[in-house]
Amino acid sequence: MNEQSGYDIEDLQVGMTGTFAKTITEADILIFAGVSGDVNAVHLNEEYAASTPFKGRIAHGMLSASLISAVLANRLPGPGTVYLEQSLKFLNPVRPGDTVNATVQVLEINEARCRVLLQTICSVNGAAVIEGTAQVKVGSSVRRAAKAAA
Amino acid sequence: MNEQSGYDIEDLQVGMTGTFAKTITEADILIFAGVSGDVNAVHLNEEYAASTPFKGRIAHGMLSASLISAVLANRLPGPGTVYLEQSLKFLNPVRPGDTVNATVQVLEINEARCRVLLQTICSVNGAAVIEGTAQVKVGSSVRRAAKAAA
Repeated sequence: MNEQSGYDIEDLQVGMTGTFAKTITEADILIFAGVSGDVNAVHLNEEYAASTPFKGRIAHGMLSASLISAVLANRLPGPGTVYLEQSLKFLNPVRPGDTVNATVQVLEINEARCRVLLQTICSVNGAAVIEGTAQVKVGSSVRRAAKAAA
Repeated sequence: MNEQSGYDIEDLQVGMTGTFAKTITEADILIFAGVSGDVNAVHLNEEYAASTPFKGRIAHGMLSASLISAVLANRLPGPGTVYLEQSLKFLNPVRPGDTVNATVQVLEINEARCRVLLQTICSVNGAAVIEGTAQVKVGSSVRRAAKAAA
């Protein structure tokens, strides 16, 4: 672990999981529209959204996806993680009031390059709403110790 | 075009581009931390961030990426677009005060399935900070007309 309780490359094993969950409120959707500039009517206009196949307002896909960033940064690998790549498939809509559970699982570890590939899934009531993978870079306790001793 | 001035599949051509730019302020970063739950010290703690290779606070990668969602939803293909997939490579950091320019360009059109593949690039001062592709679904004026006539 590093000073901020983040996992180093030597601490990680294939199969380890981390999770973060958050209820997506109407306020989250309004605020995300302002921060992103994405004012799509399907997120903000109930009358329009009710006329679409979604039958009502839905959250921005990138809002739910941002919870993956939170798991990676806060839990696994945790503080010190550098985000390199993310792929996202938006499978199902998220509605105001839904609790999104973001889960990551270590798929591959490249110790020489300090890189980790993780499966990333967001789900609501057990059903996947987003699937994909993330690639991140983490620190190395071995390299820190070598540097300190040099 | 549909009723909301969004492009239908018949309106799109390979090579068409759309863009949306936004200055990423300190307020955006704080608000994004709250909405996403990503409270990584590199985004919020100047003393810590200054000690990292980034030499100061940087914006969340997903915050800049959310501007891609804005281009797709507001400009090209515009209103009515359904977000299916997004890949992201985080190439360079974005700092408070940077203006992020998100640009999308049509790469492939599948008229039968109403699907469009777009290249998606976010840049700061002309240098790419995020690269990737998006897949979206759009409407069809031909199918709407056929449905109305039926």
